[in-house]
Amino acid sequence: MSHEGLPSTYVRVERDGAEDLVAVEEPLEIRVDTRALAVTMRTPGHDEELALGFLFGEGLIDRPVEAGLSDDLAGNVVVVTGPLLRDPGARSFYTTSSCGVCGKGAIEEVAVLSKPLPAGPTLDRDMIASLPDRLHQPGFDRTGGLHATGLFDPSGELLCVREDVGRHNAMDKVIGWALAKGAVPLHDRVLCVSGRLSFELVQKAAVAGAPILVGVGAPSSLAIELSVERGLTLCGFARDGRVNVYAGAERVRG
Amino acid sequence: MSHEGLPSTYVRVERDGAEDLVAVEEPLEIRVDTRALAVTMRTPGHDEELALGFLFGEGLIDRPVEAGLSDDLAGNVVVVTGPLLRDPGARSFYTTSSCGVCGKGAIEEVAVLSKPLPAGPTLDRDMIASLPDRLHQPGFDRTGGLHATGLFDPSGELLCVREDVGRHNAMDKVIGWALAKGAVPLHDRVLCVSGRLSFELVQKAAVAGAPILVGVGAPSSLAIELSVERGLTLCGFARDGRVNVYAGAERVRG
Repeated sequence: MSHEGLPSTYVRVERDGAEDLVAVEEPLEIRVDTRALAVTMRTPGHDEELALGFLFGEGLIDRPVEAGLSDDLAGNVVVVTGPLLRDPGARSFYTTSSCGVCGKGAIEEVAVLSKPLPAGPTLDRDMIASLPDRLHQPGFDRTGGLHATGLFDPSGELLCVREDVGRHNAMDKVIGWALAKGAVPLHDRVLCVSGRLSFELVQKAAVAGAPILVGVGAPSSLAIELSVERGLTLCGFARDGRVNVYAGAERVRG
Repeated sequence: MSHEGLPSTYVRVERDGAEDLVAVEEPLEIRVDTRALAVTMRTPGHDEELALGFLFGEGLIDRPVEAGLSDDLAGNVVVVTGPLLRDPGARSFYTTSSCGVCGKGAIEEVAVLSKPLPAGPTLDRDMIASLPDRLHQPGFDRTGGLHATGLFDPSGELLCVREDVGRHNAMDKVIGWALAKGAVPLHDRVLCVSGRLSFELVQKAAVAGAPILVGVGAPSSLAIELSVERGLTLCGFARDGRVNVYAGAERVRG
């Protein structure tokens, strides 16, 4: 299990005359060669993985590329070596849709970015329900202010966990970690998040080829629709030994 | 109290052979005249307020402007009548900072966008702790998948509440509602959110002139730093009759 660098995830602050631990939030600029592509508010640490995971999820890279923190600028710039697969300025999101800006268009866009998912693995319902308890969250335990994403193998072993103030960043970091290891697509893996299941998180899981996504919180309507369309297994409210299956029930036993 | 239109916030889905209620997530394009400015994933309803609140928080408008849903395009486009106060493409975010991309730069940007906050009001600690219980959340009660922002007067009366899959959207909708009523700046008002306190939420509260921001969840480091710099009262972990004060304790009695 990999969670190096976690101490940078929180700081001590004074509150009501006492000391308290608080999750760190700082901007990160993702730069490709000399071009600033995006700024995200994130928790420092694993920033190269964050950049790789973000670019991969957007369909801008399909393999690990060189990425490093810039020496100056307060350590808040990751420089990625291009070229990208396409011009990020000419993002096709929604523009190819048959119905303009709508959920259907967003779902079609993910279909373009992602490949079909494998039939397996198949997991026991009880094991899926237990994944949040296996999600090691030292930063959250200290601050209450961090989201987590964990990558599991089908036996429920935790392979990588990342914590971040932004739930999308935590997942980008995990996917970036796997991408750098040459372990993407995540065909025999399960992703588990500590919070709710939005469209964006299903998109990232689908593009990374992960067939099963589990969340402690509720799914949105569009997260379910996208899961059904891509054939992904979506499980929500995984807590207290129970779990709800919203899509792809064929990968869930019992 | 205003919460018209809430039925559009959730839909019925089938799960495990039974029916379940799920929060709706759909894209919304915010268009100024003919120019697409932003797309956000939001829960439908109060979309004009969302557009106004968003543009106000970015410093692009300083008073209510005309905004209406486009007739076509699946009801997912709000058209706002310009002109804006500045060119949104030339956003100055971070670029004026003395240290490049860093928290200090982000804080400086908010200082440019916002005016000083008033000294008052002063609230009892117990009353602040009770605000989340006064936050009417019918959509969350049914789905477990919506964030809420409430606007309160100093006596603790709820004036407006909005729910959304995106926490920033819920706050934009409340601020847009107040802006349309001519009630901004929110100098004698308290904002309360159902979740965590990020930099972005403190920014929106500060730009709207709200001196007190309360959250059920944890604050981030940058949310606290920005609150201290702007003189805003930031209260987190408001639950079970208790609350932590992270900044601006002079507005809290007891």
